[in-house]
Amino acid sequence: MIPASLLAKKREGQVLNEQEIYFLIDGFCSGSVADYQMSALAMAICIQGMDAAETRYLTAAMVESGNRLPRTSDRPRIDKHSTGGLGDKISLVLAPLLATFDVDVPMISGRGLGLTGGTLDKLEAIEGFQTQLSTEQSNKILRRVGAFICGASDEIAPADRRLYAIRDVTGTVESIPLITASILSKKIAARLDALVMDVKVGSAAFMKTASQAKELANTIIQVGCESNMPTTAIVSDMDQPLGEAVGNAIEVNEAVAVLEGKGPSEVRELTIELCANVLIAAQVLPQRDKAIERLNQHLDSGSARERFEQIVRAQGGIDRFPLPLAPHETIEAEANGWVEKIDCEKIGQILVEMGAGRKRADDKIRADVGVRIHARIGDRTERSQPLLSVYAPHATRSDHVEALRQAIHVGPNEIHANPLILERLNTHTGKSI
Amino acid sequence: MIPASLLAKKREGQVLNEQEIYFLIDGFCSGSVADYQMSALAMAICIQGMDAAETRYLTAAMVESGNRLPRTSDRPRIDKHSTGGLGDKISLVLAPLLATFDVDVPMISGRGLGLTGGTLDKLEAIEGFQTQLSTEQSNKILRRVGAFICGASDEIAPADRRLYAIRDVTGTVESIPLITASILSKKIAARLDALVMDVKVGSAAFMKTASQAKELANTIIQVGCESNMPTTAIVSDMDQPLGEAVGNAIEVNEAVAVLEGKGPSEVRELTIELCANVLIAAQVLPQRDKAIERLNQHLDSGSARERFEQIVRAQGGIDRFPLPLAPHETIEAEANGWVEKIDCEKIGQILVEMGAGRKRADDKIRADVGVRIHARIGDRTERSQPLLSVYAPHATRSDHVEALRQAIHVGPNEIHANPLILERLNTHTGKSI
Repeated sequence: MIPASLLAKKREGQVLNEQEIYFLIDGFCSGSVADYQMSALAMAICIQGMDAAETRYLTAAMVESGNRLPRTSDRPRIDKHSTGGLGDKISLVLAPLLATFDVDVPMISGRGLGLTGGTLDKLEAIEGFQTQLSTEQSNKILRRVGAFICGASDEIAPADRRLYAIRDVTGTVESIPLITASILSKKIAARLDALVMDVKVGSAAFMKTASQAKELANTIIQVGCESNMPTTAIVSDMDQPLGEAVGNAIEVNEAVAVLEGKGPSEVRELTIELCANVLIAAQVLPQRDKAIERLNQHLDSGSARERFEQIVRAQGGIDRFPLPLAPHETIEAEANGWVEKIDCEKIGQILVEMGAGRKRADDKIRADVGVRIHARIGDRTERSQPLLSVYAPHATRSDHVEALRQAIHVGPNEIHANPLILERLNTHTGKSI
Repeated sequence: MIPASLLAKKREGQVLNEQEIYFLIDGFCSGSVADYQMSALAMAICIQGMDAAETRYLTAAMVESGNRLPRTSDRPRIDKHSTGGLGDKISLVLAPLLATFDVDVPMISGRGLGLTGGTLDKLEAIEGFQTQLSTEQSNKILRRVGAFICGASDEIAPADRRLYAIRDVTGTVESIPLITASILSKKIAARLDALVMDVKVGSAAFMKTASQAKELANTIIQVGCESNMPTTAIVSDMDQPLGEAVGNAIEVNEAVAVLEGKGPSEVRELTIELCANVLIAAQVLPQRDKAIERLNQHLDSGSARERFEQIVRAQGGIDRFPLPLAPHETIEAEANGWVEKIDCEKIGQILVEMGAGRKRADDKIRADVGVRIHARIGDRTERSQPLLSVYAPHATRSDHVEALRQAIHVGPNEIHANPLILERLNTHTGKSI
């Protein structure tokens, strides 16, 4: 096989077979397929697409480019993946909550880049918390407390890592088959028995429309299930941040509040929905109503909070909350009205400017910087009512107060926000449930 | 500007503006745009296309990536370019014939790769002939004899050279805007006053259908003319080799025969058509009938042959023809009938196998190997009549005689070949004339 001929095939919109896809990915790993060939292939896939079988072969080839995590027990292995959004601290609540159901949650997370925060950055706001674990360390923690949250080792799907680096600089990120293969290769390498996807849709998400989000969710479900990893998905709203807190330490604090039965209801609600989906997909719990009841119990009883403490300690952290934040200033509404829009992109940009996020992969992060948004879309606000608090050293925040004020639009007309959960897509059919 | 954003723009089928195209090509030359970004752009262009303005900017940016040849006289500078085909020795006749009209023909040619032969390889069959000339040498020859035929220097459109090397291995050769920019950038860098294109169509050509060939021809005409280089084109048949001879020395011999008023009529006819077109486009001659009459005179009087001798001597060659060929064997028709098909791809492959062409860019060529095809499509053949002679050492050719026999299909029904000249497209309108 000649790489150029296979690229020309995809250029013309033809379907590549299993051997051809393995040849390209194996060659990419061994060096016989060059970066400039892989980037041209990625571009052809972006424009011409791939069917479910091609996407499955691509996923499998990327899994086989590295090692798979070993099984450490007979407990079901389950996890969640989110396409990312502002204020998304679900993983911090979900991992310990799932672990209380006698399952293993081998959670491999990432760092933030650009507007979206990273779970590892948030956890590193906890004093002593180690996010780089050896396979031996993570296995030991999994056996003992049923969950770990750490960064990926170089051995997991290295082809995906290299391909992603190329896609990032060649305008080839926006492709449903490439996104699907990138997500699923890492989850299959983690030997999950079931996965739940949280596909975000809205102005602050990668997927801007519900139909795009649903298409991605259904592709991931189909390819995940056909790869023997029962997969389910929720499409959730990201026209406004999830919960009140956006930042690092401030999001950890909110997650801990939710684990203690407090915190914003939407964070609790979405966490419980995602947990129920994956526990049912893994056949740990039989049906939805019962699952939701038991998940609420495990939150209210304090057992999820207790499991979080065990995970924090197992990974070297000190379980002392709330974490300290930078001094804050509160922005108030200037008129009566209804919150009609929250400019998540602007808020994300300002957080990056203030040091809570990264512009470049090697930037350092400030854990104590963040914002708390006191109002949600559709809320009635009165003049002088707090809209947003910004936590940052005075000199840093003063440059941004005015822009943050303008990021929350208050209008004269009553409006209604989108529901948080837009669709629940089940494992076997990809249909709404 | 960020390369990935521009690539995403083309991925979505949007139009790139002049600044954006220069940014990409300049960056490619300086190293700030990587090979893997350029290949992804090439793939996006292949699939989404480029309009005439984009193609013109791309062409201009590639011209400006290097130096332009200096003018050496006030004589009109003209040339021909062919998209290539089996047995195409037109350049060897055309350059000296044009030079007899008091014009400059700065002909920069290439080598063969794959099935298509290269003009430089053919000329190197002439003892002593130098195809690598310094700019100083080529200028001197141009002043003295009005034409040179040599390889490109590294200074001419280096961006095109690098981009072509990438396209070759990424399945991104088949793109009308990329082909147009590649051809025209080198011709504009040669400071031509007019160009004639010979766009080949048929089973042995790059363009397989007349509509593809016409689209390419019209794009080249439009972009050439808009770049202030009056350009005209002929679409010519390549369902069978051009002339009888295919190889290196054997094609030189056929070209010399045509220069001496002999040789196959179709080689003479197409050469005269191409010369007439470009002489009219450059306003050297006023109209077609007169041009064709004068071109015939310059061939019949021996003045074109004389000019060929001057060029050969100026480039260090010895003007002694016919050139020696390897021993030959003649394949005869096995039945009465009509020649219905000549499998050019097969003949080209066998010539490469026998050493007359290259599989890889660093392969050495055998000048004395070739074939002579005694019949053309539509010819009546009788049993035992010669169909094809193969010139190669006995041990080499014996492996291929049977395959060569099968490359000429003789059938029971009378058929008619395509005319040699399918379309004449003029400079200003791209319409048939």
